[in-house]
Amino acid sequence: MIRHLLSAGDLSLDDATLVLDTAEEMARLTEGRSVKKLPTLRGRTVVNLFFEDSTRTRTSFELAAKRLSADVVNFSAKGSSLSKGESLKDTALTLEAMGADGVVVRHSASGAPYRLATSGWINACVLNAGDGTHEHPTQALLDAFTMRRHLGELSGKRIVIVGDVLHSRVARSNVALLATLGAKVTLVAPPTLLPTGVERWPCDVSYDLDAALSGADAVMMLRVQRERMNAAFFPSAREYSRRYGLDSRRQALMPAEALVLHPGPMNRGMEITAEVADSDRSVIVEQVTNGVYVRMAVLYLMLAGTTEEAA
Amino acid sequence: MIRHLLSAGDLSLDDATLVLDTAEEMARLTEGRSVKKLPTLRGRTVVNLFFEDSTRTRTSFELAAKRLSADVVNFSAKGSSLSKGESLKDTALTLEAMGADGVVVRHSASGAPYRLATSGWINACVLNAGDGTHEHPTQALLDAFTMRRHLGELSGKRIVIVGDVLHSRVARSNVALLATLGAKVTLVAPPTLLPTGVERWPCDVSYDLDAALSGADAVMMLRVQRERMNAAFFPSAREYSRRYGLDSRRQALMPAEALVLHPGPMNRGMEITAEVADSDRSVIVEQVTNGVYVRMAVLYLMLAGTTEEAA
Amino acid sequence: MIRHLLSAGDLSLDDATLVLDTAEEMARLTEGRSVKKLPTLRGRTVVNLFFEDSTRTRTSFELAAKRLSADVVNFSAKGSSLSKGESLKDTALTLEAMGADGVVVRHSASGAPYRLATSGWINACVLNAGDGTHEHPTQALLDAFTMRRHLGELSGKRIVIVGDVLHSRVARSNVALLATLGAKVTLVAPPTLLPTGVERWPCDVSYDLDAALSGADAVMMLRVQRERMNAAFFPSAREYSRRYGLDSRRQALMPAEALVLHPGPMNRGMEITAEVADSDRSVIVEQVTNGVYVRMAVLYLMLAGTTEEAA
Repeated sequence: MIRHLLSAGDLSLDDATLVLDTAEEMARLTEGRSVKKLPTLRGRTVVNLFFEDSTRTRTSFELAAKRLSADVVNFSAKGSSLSKGESLKDTALTLEAMGADGVVVRHSASGAPYRLATSGWINACVLNAGDGTHEHPTQALLDAFTMRRHLGELSGKRIVIVGDVLHSRVARSNVALLATLGAKVTLVAPPTLLPTGVERWPCDVSYDLDAALSGADAVMMLRVQRERMNAAFFPSAREYSRRYGLDSRRQALMPAEALVLHPGPMNRGMEITAEVADSDRSVIVEQVTNGVYVRMAVLYLMLAGTTEEAA
Repeated sequence: MIRHLLSAGDLSLDDATLVLDTAEEMARLTEGRSVKKLPTLRGRTVVNLFFEDSTRTRTSFELAAKRLSADVVNFSAKGSSLSKGESLKDTALTLEAMGADGVVVRHSASGAPYRLATSGWINACVLNAGDGTHEHPTQALLDAFTMRRHLGELSGKRIVIVGDVLHSRVARSNVALLATLGAKVTLVAPPTLLPTGVERWPCDVSYDLDAALSGADAVMMLRVQRERMNAAFFPSAREYSRRYGLDSRRQALMPAEALVLHPGPMNRGMEITAEVADSDRSVIVEQVTNGVYVRMAVLYLMLAGTTEEAA
Repeated sequence: MIRHLLSAGDLSLDDATLVLDTAEEMARLTEGRSVKKLPTLRGRTVVNLFFEDSTRTRTSFELAAKRLSADVVNFSAKGSSLSKGESLKDTALTLEAMGADGVVVRHSASGAPYRLATSGWINACVLNAGDGTHEHPTQALLDAFTMRRHLGELSGKRIVIVGDVLHSRVARSNVALLATLGAKVTLVAPPTLLPTGVERWPCDVSYDLDAALSGADAVMMLRVQRERMNAAFFPSAREYSRRYGLDSRRQALMPAEALVLHPGPMNRGMEITAEVADSDRSVIVEQVTNGVYVRMAVLYLMLAGTTEEAA
């Protein structure tokens, strides 16, 4: 049983497989049903503690919790006493005292969910919904779930991740989880957008996108943050697209059954063209659907049975 | 069965009557009950996609959906990736992928709900909650419902709509729906606040408010947007009130049983005096109540039975 | 039965005791349960009408209402027509018309909840969640509940309230409620932060914190608003802490079993040190937990049985 979900790297192969199998079960129980709701977490409280705006991720967790019949409270840090300088500790103590069973936290500071979970402030389960440039484990889980549905077990599969790896918590979480699942990951990025120490990550690095694509089972395009461009990480949008963007020409280099993923939101025309995003190889929309199943799975695995009664 | 609710003009007489009759049923089932809740849409998901703030309309839809036991998620476009340039298309694909059964959309651009509904991006039912200066169909339906409750069938009834017709989606939706229901509509507005082409609308136009009032079964006062005044659409608040405002003197010109409506929020003292707003001819507060019944009706008609199981 | 909850001073001894006993019952029915939910207010609607941000108080009321199975709508005044100049009256009429059974109101203007409750605009129960510098009755109730759990009946107990009494609705509500419950209250504050007329309040005033602490059963530290310092109410943070802050040295002056309370959010290091806040005499975290029980109790007492059916 998972206690907190802080990092994809913390998950053993058994843990990860349990989440993916449980997500499959959630899909089976709700997909295409008119009543997409299970009574599993009735009377449990999930708090969305978002220090950064993220409507998509917050909504995905909110829907996942509601489909399990939990009560959900959005505890936005904007305009709260948090912005008046209340410490993360006192916020944690407050949420715990209010009876939160699970706290979904998004924070601009890498490591904030770790502090929440490991400082002894709270008993509630902590779910990292993205912390700084560090990790976004449910994103990696939904990516793996999506690829597994199409490709079967991921062991030995070749996954190419392309773009701003340096600032990407999505890339970090994916590299860690995919290594656990036995996949072979290749990162393709401009040298300025690779983190120092990447050579110790459990993956390969390449600067030649075309070559990497030709052997891929799946290609994951990372979002470009336009504000990075101004910060001189890369010269221009056009140049970035030309060298690291996925367009139809490049898609044609990929094996026939290879998948295209993107965590969203996309910059259509920048890191990915509209044609590729909407092509029949793209599973980008499925990723969003699967995000709800995966979040239902982790909420279920973490919160069902958290009290003596339910044990 | 209504597929999308984009424009009051799209509703046939049968459609409109079905909505109004269903709203009557919703009122009967919940009015004055301590448990104002029906299980009808349990497990369905309604997303409020508001690109413009509108606490009143959003709350009315939220309550309507909750009274039908649907799960409701507020997907505010503020601070979301939408404001970071995500396309309406990708937002639509995301909501669809998350399993939205109904999307209630408010947008500053006329036609945005049409694009959502007709571009093939989503299967979910789209409900226009106000788009630019174009339409606000549930407002027209609740206005018609309110008038019908007092006046009986609206065929042949004389309805006067007064004020800034040019910028009013409320006026556009009302003219279309009331024409379908057989009512005779007269618009009264300053010439600068009438749209070009109004002579082709299914209604009369008058510049003489006193004359129009004398034959009215109901008078609908439109909200004045104070920012229009600065834009030179009319000279001053005082002058506007004097020529187009509804005060007690003018109310006395109306037939004894004639109703006063306003979509809210009112500028008391501007387009309507407090005395008139609070008089026993005013049904302004009933309009708000009826808004919930009408929105329950359209959500029910559109979402119940949207999947094979429920068929 | 309480009709509105506007002021702690309005509560009779019987009313207050009923709330505290009911809160005890709410604790008994939900504490430590995996299903922290009672069906009591199913189908009732609670509106959180917050003209000031307060994530903590809003969340506490939201959780309390959800645990009683009520539908909750957050009607933020930010960005609503309220900020466009709609009157409090029209907002009230709107919420009433939408079928609100209870309205929880937080407002920067002292007396706003009174106006809502007493102007005949609404039938819904009004709960004051903090109005200007006036009152915050559920805070006083949760403080009393917390102290009663530790100290037994509060009659004759000695409570010391320390800090910015002038601007504190928490202090006003506590003085009123504790007087009703028969406790002996001593206020300790800089002379500049005492209200005129405090000599007519049912409590003592002292400028000697050390002396007051030595005889206390409980000490309640008030939050310092840093912006007051700039307004010359007190010279410096350091000077304030030295004279009116609670640190370990001062805590040692208190009787062995005396409690430390704080309404939160705390300025650790200002009015209270971290050591004291986290000491085993501190019941600050329990106050948050008890806030949910007390709010469940008042919502239950006010809303259950508000319609003929439920009578």
